[in-house]
Amino acid sequence: MKFALIGTGRIGKMHAEIIKTNPLSELVSLTDINEEEAKKVGYSLGVKVTSPEDIFNDPNVDAVLIASSTKTHIDYILQGTKAKKAVFCEKPISLNIEDVLDCQKKLGDYSNTIQVGFNRRFDPHHLSLKEAIQKGAIGKIEKVIITSRDPGLPPVDYLKGSGGIFNDMLIHDFDMAYHLLGEAPKKISSFGNALVDSSLKDFGDIDTAMVNMEMKSGALCHINASRRAVYGYDQRIEVFGEKGMLISQNPTKTTLEYFGRDQTYSKPPLFDFFIDRYEKAYHNQLEDFVQNSKGSPSMGCQFKDSVIVSKMAKAAADSYKQGSVVSFS
Amino acid sequence: MKFALIGTGRIGKMHAEIIKTNPLSELVSLTDINEEEAKKVGYSLGVKVTSPEDIFNDPNVDAVLIASSTKTHIDYILQGTKAKKAVFCEKPISLNIEDVLDCQKKLGDYSNTIQVGFNRRFDPHHLSLKEAIQKGAIGKIEKVIITSRDPGLPPVDYLKGSGGIFNDMLIHDFDMAYHLLGEAPKKISSFGNALVDSSLKDFGDIDTAMVNMEMKSGALCHINASRRAVYGYDQRIEVFGEKGMLISQNPTKTTLEYFGRDQTYSKPPLFDFFIDRYEKAYHNQLEDFVQNSKGSPSMGCQFKDSVIVSKMAKAAADSYKQGSVVSFS
Amino acid sequence: MKFALIGTGRIGKMHAEIIKTNPLSELVSLTDINEEEAKKVGYSLGVKVTSPEDIFNDPNVDAVLIASSTKTHIDYILQGTKAKKAVFCEKPISLNIEDVLDCQKKLGDYSNTIQVGFNRRFDPHHLSLKEAIQKGAIGKIEKVIITSRDPGLPPVDYLKGSGGIFNDMLIHDFDMAYHLLGEAPKKISSFGNALVDSSLKDFGDIDTAMVNMEMKSGALCHINASRRAVYGYDQRIEVFGEKGMLISQNPTKTTLEYFGRDQTYSKPPLFDFFIDRYEKAYHNQLEDFVQNSKGSPSMGCQFKDSVIVSKMAKAAADSYKQGSVVSFS
Amino acid sequence: MKFALIGTGRIGKMHAEIIKTNPLSELVSLTDINEEEAKKVGYSLGVKVTSPEDIFNDPNVDAVLIASSTKTHIDYILQGTKAKKAVFCEKPISLNIEDVLDCQKKLGDYSNTIQVGFNRRFDPHHLSLKEAIQKGAIGKIEKVIITSRDPGLPPVDYLKGSGGIFNDMLIHDFDMAYHLLGEAPKKISSFGNALVDSSLKDFGDIDTAMVNMEMKSGALCHINASRRAVYGYDQRIEVFGEKGMLISQNPTKTTLEYFGRDQTYSKPPLFDFFIDRYEKAYHNQLEDFVQNSKGSPSMGCQFKDSVIVSKMAKAAADSYKQGSVVSFS
Repeated sequence: MKFALIGTGRIGKMHAEIIKTNPLSELVSLTDINEEEAKKVGYSLGVKVTSPEDIFNDPNVDAVLIASSTKTHIDYILQGTKAKKAVFCEKPISLNIEDVLDCQKKLGDYSNTIQVGFNRRFDPHHLSLKEAIQKGAIGKIEKVIITSRDPGLPPVDYLKGSGGIFNDMLIHDFDMAYHLLGEAPKKISSFGNALVDSSLKDFGDIDTAMVNMEMKSGALCHINASRRAVYGYDQRIEVFGEKGMLISQNPTKTTLEYFGRDQTYSKPPLFDFFIDRYEKAYHNQLEDFVQNSKGSPSMGCQFKDSVIVSKMAKAAADSYKQGSVVSFS
Repeated sequence: MKFALIGTGRIGKMHAEIIKTNPLSELVSLTDINEEEAKKVGYSLGVKVTSPEDIFNDPNVDAVLIASSTKTHIDYILQGTKAKKAVFCEKPISLNIEDVLDCQKKLGDYSNTIQVGFNRRFDPHHLSLKEAIQKGAIGKIEKVIITSRDPGLPPVDYLKGSGGIFNDMLIHDFDMAYHLLGEAPKKISSFGNALVDSSLKDFGDIDTAMVNMEMKSGALCHINASRRAVYGYDQRIEVFGEKGMLISQNPTKTTLEYFGRDQTYSKPPLFDFFIDRYEKAYHNQLEDFVQNSKGSPSMGCQFKDSVIVSKMAKAAADSYKQGSVVSFS
Repeated sequence: MKFALIGTGRIGKMHAEIIKTNPLSELVSLTDINEEEAKKVGYSLGVKVTSPEDIFNDPNVDAVLIASSTKTHIDYILQGTKAKKAVFCEKPISLNIEDVLDCQKKLGDYSNTIQVGFNRRFDPHHLSLKEAIQKGAIGKIEKVIITSRDPGLPPVDYLKGSGGIFNDMLIHDFDMAYHLLGEAPKKISSFGNALVDSSLKDFGDIDTAMVNMEMKSGALCHINASRRAVYGYDQRIEVFGEKGMLISQNPTKTTLEYFGRDQTYSKPPLFDFFIDRYEKAYHNQLEDFVQNSKGSPSMGCQFKDSVIVSKMAKAAADSYKQGSVVSFS
Repeated sequence: MKFALIGTGRIGKMHAEIIKTNPLSELVSLTDINEEEAKKVGYSLGVKVTSPEDIFNDPNVDAVLIASSTKTHIDYILQGTKAKKAVFCEKPISLNIEDVLDCQKKLGDYSNTIQVGFNRRFDPHHLSLKEAIQKGAIGKIEKVIITSRDPGLPPVDYLKGSGGIFNDMLIHDFDMAYHLLGEAPKKISSFGNALVDSSLKDFGDIDTAMVNMEMKSGALCHINASRRAVYGYDQRIEVFGEKGMLISQNPTKTTLEYFGRDQTYSKPPLFDFFIDRYEKAYHNQLEDFVQNSKGSPSMGCQFKDSVIVSKMAKAAADSYKQGSVVSFS
């Protein structure tokens, strides 16, 4: 499968490396708004540097991987679909729910694969959780509890343009909830606060949040998030059902245990960088996208799923702002 | 310290045994509404059987332990206080918040010790959590997540008179939240459902619940409960703060690990009976009560604390019924 | 069952307390070579102080618990047996294997219960290991690995009279090996060293040891011991068989876990005092002895077992001293 | 660094893939005694197929990776050294200690890098153990306990030519012991048995073994091995020192935990194939070899180390056969 890459920033470069190690994929061209950067990356990878237009017009390109800035996503999704390419777009589609819905409208009926990069679905630990659920290990799901904590606050300038904690950070958790439960919520209630850096409230954002959801089936779901867990990435998922419980725990860097006089038993650190934490997830995600484009069933987040996930994030943000329970339709 | 026991049912008998093994305590008399039962227990323990009146009039009795049915609690608390006995009353004070508030009014100023039996504070695992918080191990608390699951649904007849899941079961968790955070909530939001036995809805009860609270300081707290966890008592507490996280995990019956062909690694079962699960907690609780009655500071739930805890349960139940966020005053 | 206690030192007092809390047992008299001490203990427990002679002559005494100094054990075992009492004797029978064999000879045929205090058999974790083996969880046993480490070196004066590390400390592990495997060794090979305190070599003792044994069935067994594990009591048992593996892990004081910046994940301390570590084991042991005396089958170490265990300790010590493999007959 | 590969069997192909993903390495040619197989591999990798002679004569080749059959190792090591190539040879150098010593003599003084493929040193878990030791986490080492169990018995035909369990399987553990302790043994004592398949005794081999060693410093080391652990690769290392203990535990495939009615808590399986288990170790090993060849210090097993390791395996085998303690010189 021949890929073209739009956007060669940190995450774009990571995707380029993954495409290169995937035996079924090949990176044939790339582009970036920063021409210098695009040339540097193209040179080091031995890949042709081109323009978005040429990518969409190139009959040799099977798939477009969109890793450019968020505000360009919708335009490239529409162009890629028009050109009948398979489209993989980094999350989120847009910071604005109206734009997401407008994009959906413009897409109309489409036959190409359009996946959005909710990579956590492909984390090996979360994958095995999903598989166990599908095998009926715990019967009907009654509760999902998602812990979602990043190691530290991003720069305030980043946060100002991020769309807020629900849309920027918890959107991953809304995707996992929707993916694991296989259904949308009925009601959402959120609380939150700026406990790490109170200045976030100046531009309407927070760094600590709790969300409860009642799903259409009556199952309950909780997400609790923080922008700063001093001990590293803390992203666990617990699923409770009529026949038992499953927990996808945090992986540790090694299995080394230490027993000493003052600190009797310690285990090794959690990960502190998301690309290390989710390395295998990104590889699995690309593999799934390639297979999906060829017609196989997929674990990935399809465009229509991502619309629902964006709506969930919007409803949670509304609940926090209004201080009330929000109905989800 | 000389104890008299009112109520010799299952929990009363347990308290009698604990008093007997406590080196500072002595059980001098007991009574029960069922005279036959009282005689049987009195005979087997070698303890005098008497009446509530005689207990409150006996100058030889220092402390009254109330383990009779819930509807008698307030009357005995008031009589014990009037008689200037130290009073230990099993939870809850009443199923009705108005009665609790009325009792508080009637008590007025009192100088005796009145503790309510929220035994989980004294569980060795939860105790070590509280101590670590007090030592500043994780700095300022930002989030508390309480998992509260019982092994199986009690008989429906019991549930009909229980006061509902928030007042009967989650009240323990409201007490732990209040105890660990040291503050009351500002706002409460609850969702719930009868997922284990849908017939509970017929009398307004549920078996599965999720509660979010925003505390006065801005810290957030989540409780998730189920009446049926097939794998046993699941009562964990996670506290997240600016400097780290503490988790009081479930104890297991033994430390035996098994590695086999089909089931690679398993650990031993959780407890399936609350008196086994909280055996040490009950002993520690009595010891604390005895010391508290003699003037020492206490980890126990004082009467005035239990009023706040009952209000929290009421507010959570109201939030569920109204489907809205409830303010706490 | 009416007990008399000989020896009211630390371990004797502990046994007295256990007898008092056992519903089937009663402590009727006690004695100690230190009359003052005996009086003090007798007074605090409300138990008659008497002499060994009176104990053996008292028809009211069913069982004698011997917790006096090691050199008196054999004489009291013989007297107790002659008086047809059930006899429970603290380990070891003697520091001298010849004396043990001589005692066995003198006992001849006897019909009373004689148990030796190898309490670890009754530790709940090790008990569940034994039960799992008996249920066939891992099939035929092929390897046993015993970790045996005490928190710190006892006083050198104690060690001088202890009989050496194999007889004083590893004897517990030889008992567990014999108990779990249900058979005696064919060959023993030991290495050792005084790594904690090299002065132990001056009187022929060591503080660190490793023993390998080939059992009669061909199964292999390893014991590794140290007198000083700075992190607390470390006494794990691993049993490997044709169908899997079982491990009786170290219990911890609580289940509290801590995640922090510098020390990502730590679990609570191991025990640092053997009476805390083996509290339940001592209670279970007494219960077993009482039931055994009444004719029930027993998990306890019978006199004849303890003779084999003493021989194993002797052979291991010989192997270390001679620097060669020793055959066991 | 330009590599040539000798031997394109299973392990050779794995090395070819690893060379390709290492950014500092390039595979320029390969050869195999089976010309058809060599051509197939060369074609699929796009690498020139050649002969051993051409490899050693090619000035373009910097390093030779020897993954051919064991009996060819010494000849290729000598030729590679003569040609001043960096040499990486799969373990073992030879099944015969005399041949190893003869090879060492013939090599004389050499200036090229010669590493032997003891990959476990580079396992991330064992690596972090070694680093913690070097940082002084547990002070002076007093005991090392190595658990070494493979998932299942290889075909008997393989075993007949394997050189026996000590030379074929435990040689990895002797290498780890020598690597972690940084010293050779003084005395070795081994026991063993054919418990999995008694027919192994017909050709002098066993499947279950225990080895004790006393090292030159007086530290003690234990290795216990089995050819068949039904629950998967079980390769743990425990190091005990004056200031504490370190354990490199078995990694699991995922972090998923399951709690159910009959099997209360289980963790995911161990690995069942050594190439999966040690995937990262093989990559780290190649990286170390490349850096080492350029003059950097190395964690790898140098030729002279591997001679000592082979002697340890020989001594352990002798101890088992003779039934006696063997001195190591």
